[in-house]
Amino acid sequence: MCQLLGMNCNVPTDICFSFTGFSRRGGHTDHHGDGWGIAFFEGHGCRIFRDYLPSAESPIAELVQRYPIKSTNVIAHIRKATQGAVNLANTHPFLRELWGQYWIFAHNGNLEGLPNDFGDYYQPVGSTDSERAFCLILERLRKRFSALPEHAQLCQALREIATELAALGTFNFMLSNGDWLFAHCATHLHYIVRHAPFAQAHLVDDDVTVDFSEVTTPNDRVAVIATQPLTDNECWHKMAPGELICFRDGYPEPVA
Amino acid sequence: MCQLLGMNCNVPTDICFSFTGFSRRGGHTDHHGDGWGIAFFEGHGCRIFRDYLPSAESPIAELVQRYPIKSTNVIAHIRKATQGAVNLANTHPFLRELWGQYWIFAHNGNLEGLPNDFGDYYQPVGSTDSERAFCLILERLRKRFSALPEHAQLCQALREIATELAALGTFNFMLSNGDWLFAHCATHLHYIVRHAPFAQAHLVDDDVTVDFSEVTTPNDRVAVIATQPLTDNECWHKMAPGELICFRDGYPEPVA
Repeated sequence: MCQLLGMNCNVPTDICFSFTGFSRRGGHTDHHGDGWGIAFFEGHGCRIFRDYLPSAESPIAELVQRYPIKSTNVIAHIRKATQGAVNLANTHPFLRELWGQYWIFAHNGNLEGLPNDFGDYYQPVGSTDSERAFCLILERLRKRFSALPEHAQLCQALREIATELAALGTFNFMLSNGDWLFAHCATHLHYIVRHAPFAQAHLVDDDVTVDFSEVTTPNDRVAVIATQPLTDNECWHKMAPGELICFRDGYPEPVA
Repeated sequence: MCQLLGMNCNVPTDICFSFTGFSRRGGHTDHHGDGWGIAFFEGHGCRIFRDYLPSAESPIAELVQRYPIKSTNVIAHIRKATQGAVNLANTHPFLRELWGQYWIFAHNGNLEGLPNDFGDYYQPVGSTDSERAFCLILERLRKRFSALPEHAQLCQALREIATELAALGTFNFMLSNGDWLFAHCATHLHYIVRHAPFAQAHLVDDDVTVDFSEVTTPNDRVAVIATQPLTDNECWHKMAPGELICFRDGYPEPVA
């Protein structure tokens, strides 16, 4: 299985601290050594760094740790391959354009028997179940709505699609268009929302502590979502199997 | 105006030498300081590095210069903004999926009055004429061919679309799907094909020399395409206005 990391906040924030711990799970403190990737939204622009080297050894991962890219929505992934060879085309996160917006997707799990009713608008390039699931989600959305719908309609559609695909295996995923970050839990997904008064946090995977009160303002809200908690002195919420949460401006909104 | 750099070769090759000279034009030896980007195909996977900082100052550009990513098709761009703000959504190269392949595009020039007959399949995210032109190209291809056509048909379609759009302004562009690299010249585009016996090359923009005979095999063929020649001791071919070339395995094939 893979590991996921996401961040959603109300002001552009860098993810250097969380990514430092997370990337060590890619071949160092854990065995997810089949590539990694991270996508940053900056406005509606997006940049993705990807490598098929283990994140613990990748020069690009080292750059991402020390170059503070400020973003309101981030999705990162370290891969333990289940379906598909270890190459760049199979490395998450995946990107497509829908309704004039970039959408980013990463998946932890394994799906079998995905439907074939897509391909009019979106086709996978690589050979993973994950990219096929992403294309299927976007195809369904695109066929249902010709333009970005009302938020409630979008949530309802994603709720239905997530439930359908989750029946095919293990479907922990994160999906973002730069405004919202949707997180769906099948087995393992945890989140924390940091806000004032900010405190110190200490990584599980590395002996690094940060005092968030020194790097934030009182109005900041930062939600961090991860397969397993990244810090050992904070209280992370464990998501329930089947739970879908839409994070917006650092606030978690369950999608019923 | 912007500057373009492309590479097409028959074996995966790194572009560190050419990019070192090219990136210095982004705010150092030239004034193209409104961001830069570079896309590498590795198989049919693709990674893009982008920054809105000038390439001469960008830590990401510095990484690309020293991290030898081997690729058969590369497109890079440094931007001098004409239409659209300086931000990530407006930074070339642009990426979309067509027929289950990633396609990459970068443009040097300015187009006015682009047609609006697209949007069924592709929509721009940013506000540049360049991304609109790219979406228009893909939309036309997608509507004409439901899957990747024969090479001659693809060339013919691109020839027609390039001629149509070139009538709207200045349209130097590069387009690649990882197999071919199409280069269209409106005003300035030069190329060189390096093959055995390999010799030394010296950059225009930096006092750097490389002896390609030390880093190649006798069967290598590497085409490098750039707005202005990157070396001062080799013979670059100047493309003619309106000329469209399809580069494949390092061979230039004019598209009549």
